[in-house]
Amino acid sequence: MRNYKLILCYDGSRYNGWQKQGNTPDTIQGKVETLLSRLLEQPIDIAGSGRTDEGAHARRQVASFRADTPLACAQILDGLRRYLPEDIGALSLEEAAPRFHARLSCKGKTYVYRLWTEEAPNVFERKYVFPLLVPLDLERMRAGAKWLCGTHDYASFCANKNIKKSTVRTIQSIDIERAGGEVRFTYTGDGFLYKMVRILTGTLVEVGQGMRRPEQMVTVLASEDREKAGPALPAQGLILWEVYY
Amino acid sequence: MRNYKLILCYDGSRYNGWQKQGNTPDTIQGKVETLLSRLLEQPIDIAGSGRTDEGAHARRQVASFRADTPLACAQILDGLRRYLPEDIGALSLEEAAPRFHARLSCKGKTYVYRLWTEEAPNVFERKYVFPLLVPLDLERMRAGAKWLCGTHDYASFCANKNIKKSTVRTIQSIDIERAGGEVRFTYTGDGFLYKMVRILTGTLVEVGQGMRRPEQMVTVLASEDREKAGPALPAQGLILWEVYY
Repeated sequence: MRNYKLILCYDGSRYNGWQKQGNTPDTIQGKVETLLSRLLEQPIDIAGSGRTDEGAHARRQVASFRADTPLACAQILDGLRRYLPEDIGALSLEEAAPRFHARLSCKGKTYVYRLWTEEAPNVFERKYVFPLLVPLDLERMRAGAKWLCGTHDYASFCANKNIKKSTVRTIQSIDIERAGGEVRFTYTGDGFLYKMVRILTGTLVEVGQGMRRPEQMVTVLASEDREKAGPALPAQGLILWEVYY
Repeated sequence: MRNYKLILCYDGSRYNGWQKQGNTPDTIQGKVETLLSRLLEQPIDIAGSGRTDEGAHARRQVASFRADTPLACAQILDGLRRYLPEDIGALSLEEAAPRFHARLSCKGKTYVYRLWTEEAPNVFERKYVFPLLVPLDLERMRAGAKWLCGTHDYASFCANKNIKKSTVRTIQSIDIERAGGEVRFTYTGDGFLYKMVRILTGTLVEVGQGMRRPEQMVTVLASEDREKAGPALPAQGLILWEVYY
């Protein structure tokens, strides 16, 4: 059995997220596993670096799997590129160290959330940005973001209410930049909870609109209460940008 | 009656081109005219700066129309943005001088043709690039492009065989640049014939592959014979980039 590291990208618009769910066929994991099992003529289970939500995208998602096959990586990659649907791309495939595991070995991730803030629509990237036509004060949002960085219990920013594992994470940086009509939030951290990036962005947007003060992020974090944070913005603006090992 | 200048962008993937054709409803012109006629409660005819092919896109397409309405431009624009499908965007609307006509007043245009040349697919822009996995010598193509600039009879590069009007045009510049996995051709000229940009690009690609010598462009032009030029590349990589007045 060899161990493989596969890097994928996808437009998640028409999928029920990354993770295979029973008989729901339209997940990215499901599509890739089904194809790999066919190509390698054996049942393949792939592990992603993490789940991405229904409708969210990945610029680079990493998956690992074990297989016993005489096929070279280039041949497998060629098969993936030939048969994957046009909204899932196989970027690379290589043999990995025996202990490599896409989720367990993961050291950190970068997520990007893209807002489109102009009235003139962004037709070409419409599936990858979320349109939000309210004035946003970037300096206010950056001040709020500073309070959200560091090592904290992010229970307030987690959509999963019955989580039993630790909700402590470390966010290294939150960058907020305007580029043309877009406002782009870039989050880098050791890991993110369910819908955490979308709730963080929804809360910072409330700061940017003047509905909350930046330093209020401290009390939202301390409350460990989902009700105290802002809404989760839609998945369409969310992109898994990079995974670190 | 007032005269209006409307700037549009569109993802042309699912349309039968710009121009309204009898009862074919799925043209960009058809969609915009139908909506404007409804919003302004009078039959509206719009003139585009030119047709774009079935499946081709526009970053900026200019249209003009006359109407007698008490509505302000901002109100009409708002209605367009509210009711146009998500793949057609209204960028701006303003009152124009009485003699302004989007086609007749047009002084020139820029078209872009985008090739995707890497094996790893471009999932996010897949509808706006044409994948072509052959090695291309950019210097050769630039040398060929030089011969194609200037004022010439471009009959060899026109897909309409029974054209009665002049096929003489002036191309000011053809820029060919690589950016990451993309090779981008940018054509600026006073006007372009039916499928001309796609045939020019198809011919230059043959130069870039070594199938033709750059200076052969001279004899292709002189022949005034469509058979002597290369194939028209698919419309999906073609974008009307800018229109000049």
